[in-house]
Amino acid sequence: MARPFTADDFDARMRRVAEDCTGAGLSGLIITPGPDLYYLTGYRPVAITERITALVLAPGRQPAMLMPKLERPDVERSVSADRLELSDWADGSDPSTALAPLLPDPRGRYGISDSSWALHLLGMQEALPDSTYSPLTKAMPMMRAVKDEAELERLAAAGKAADDTYFDILQVPFAGRLETEVAADLAASLKRHGHSQVDFTVVGSGPNGANPHHEAGERRIEPGDTVVLDFGGLMDGYGSDTTRTVHVGADVPDEVRKVHDVVRTAQQAAFEAVRPGVGCQEIDRAARKVITEAGYGDYFIHRTGHGIGTTTHEPPYMVEGEAQELVPGMCFSIEPGVYLPGRFGVRIEDIVTVTETGGRRLNNTPHELGTVR
Amino acid sequence: MARPFTADDFDARMRRVAEDCTGAGLSGLIITPGPDLYYLTGYRPVAITERITALVLAPGRQPAMLMPKLERPDVERSVSADRLELSDWADGSDPSTALAPLLPDPRGRYGISDSSWALHLLGMQEALPDSTYSPLTKAMPMMRAVKDEAELERLAAAGKAADDTYFDILQVPFAGRLETEVAADLAASLKRHGHSQVDFTVVGSGPNGANPHHEAGERRIEPGDTVVLDFGGLMDGYGSDTTRTVHVGADVPDEVRKVHDVVRTAQQAAFEAVRPGVGCQEIDRAARKVITEAGYGDYFIHRTGHGIGTTTHEPPYMVEGEAQELVPGMCFSIEPGVYLPGRFGVRIEDIVTVTETGGRRLNNTPHELGTVR
Repeated sequence: MARPFTADDFDARMRRVAEDCTGAGLSGLIITPGPDLYYLTGYRPVAITERITALVLAPGRQPAMLMPKLERPDVERSVSADRLELSDWADGSDPSTALAPLLPDPRGRYGISDSSWALHLLGMQEALPDSTYSPLTKAMPMMRAVKDEAELERLAAAGKAADDTYFDILQVPFAGRLETEVAADLAASLKRHGHSQVDFTVVGSGPNGANPHHEAGERRIEPGDTVVLDFGGLMDGYGSDTTRTVHVGADVPDEVRKVHDVVRTAQQAAFEAVRPGVGCQEIDRAARKVITEAGYGDYFIHRTGHGIGTTTHEPPYMVEGEAQELVPGMCFSIEPGVYLPGRFGVRIEDIVTVTETGGRRLNNTPHELGTVR
Repeated sequence: MARPFTADDFDARMRRVAEDCTGAGLSGLIITPGPDLYYLTGYRPVAITERITALVLAPGRQPAMLMPKLERPDVERSVSADRLELSDWADGSDPSTALAPLLPDPRGRYGISDSSWALHLLGMQEALPDSTYSPLTKAMPMMRAVKDEAELERLAAAGKAADDTYFDILQVPFAGRLETEVAADLAASLKRHGHSQVDFTVVGSGPNGANPHHEAGERRIEPGDTVVLDFGGLMDGYGSDTTRTVHVGADVPDEVRKVHDVVRTAQQAAFEAVRPGVGCQEIDRAARKVITEAGYGDYFIHRTGHGIGTTTHEPPYMVEGEAQELVPGMCFSIEPGVYLPGRFGVRIEDIVTVTETGGRRLNNTPHELGTVR
């Protein structure tokens, strides 16, 4: 396990982000529990509920955190506690009234965590009617996007654990078992290789593979099935997310092989397009071009990738219309797929980080169509 | 397991809630994934992400649901699909532009799920600048609060499973084990008794019991510890949540016994206050009066209870200032506690439902201080 982040590490992040507010046209930020708060303070409340916890950052001010009175001991024990000005609110009082004075300007413009509850945003809009808000990923899309060395080390370790999970799963029987049984094997293997949390274990066999968001169901896997395996979670606070497509038995139909080759070529083309200064949408275009030219463009029905860090799903998005340029240290998935309704699906996904000169994969298992029994 | 809810069941709920908009001064509702959507449609997306899914309900209109294109097959397979007007949006397009036309009036006032992402609410406020929004629990606090017979049956079954879990845990060793080990026993037992999801397994031993939101940590439990056990999750879509306090060994200090008796009397007093027409705050007052008169008022630092249903935490809240009157079919926790910093905590919690004449407990294990080894 990597060296734990210290109060100084988090303090440096909070300072950088607070100073970035000015350039982003913001008076400050309201950060609620989830990946933003974890990234900035190392604190994760026991649960995310209707009881608001919020970190307020603003240029030139000490970071301030409001929390429910009964969660104050948890905050006080957290790594960044002594860098924060703490205040609490009790059940029965209005948390917006407690949060409003922490903001530097009642007429200010604030970035707010994307996943903040509407309940809390509406409370702030009512308490400070002249304040305005912008989702954090629009106001400050780069806040968590560029990873430092310590973060890259964690993402690489999570990627390695996902690779080891893939090698494990090639050894288990598929034919005759339920998708959910193979999914349980994936989850157990991710945990065995060090994941603290499993976020998804997609086992899309046969026609289920043609639904890119199919998780795992009660379908019994058959010999001759093509199976999409997409799995990941969190390890040491950072995410993994990889996809490989396997075939049950060595007798692979020509079209499966053809589609798999197309997706593999598309994944490679997108990877080769990665370098600093290239727009995110170029990565999507590189993969899509290969698939479209092969005649499967209508069957690639999602974006090519998403960022990864303290979550398994975050900006930057590799999608048409996203002009954001790649910067060294960004980490994201490249995961083109082709989905033939009622028949089968193929997807290949690696996490990639941007280097000074190109891209580096954080997943390194073979791209060949895997064979399972 | 109870009879599964049918499309007709969900349709009846959606109709009732849509018609209730008028009385609540709303043009309609925007319901996003989570307990509201599950309650109204039976649909739970694989994950709640930055990709918006939203159900729009309005009086006299067919319910409409917007979803990401790649999740459309999941929605189409869900139980209520044929009662919904479906539309989707693709990666790279603006979902607010797709959602806005589903709303009946661009100048309307809408209720929105409390836990909807700020990202999505801000998108709607930008797309329809003359629309206004209110959190669903404020605009329509009773929407999910009153449970019908089929829901009560599920909550009672979940309560029974939590009771069985408590009886199991009385049999396991405590002294010399880590809190996290006992917590794992609680989780395994909840699953064994039918829970599909474990939401919390609090094991607060000795001084950790004095932090009401302590989960379970690396503290080794000692003979003579008082231990707060608070556990629950979801079974068949409905929640359990119960707390008992136990002591390691039979040699119970006088003050632990005294505090436990106070909390037990407070829990009973609050339970006896339950009947239709009584304000929620009266339940809190009934418990608080007992604890305050015993001299421990400063150490009862949270509200007395919260509603339960398709979540383990929802309105109505038993808290000072909440005048909402109890109605037969409401279900909520009664969970007074006393927390002596650095020493120990005591909490006793049952789920209670309001009947025509009073209250009925959905947890039924003894309230006596349990003894463990």
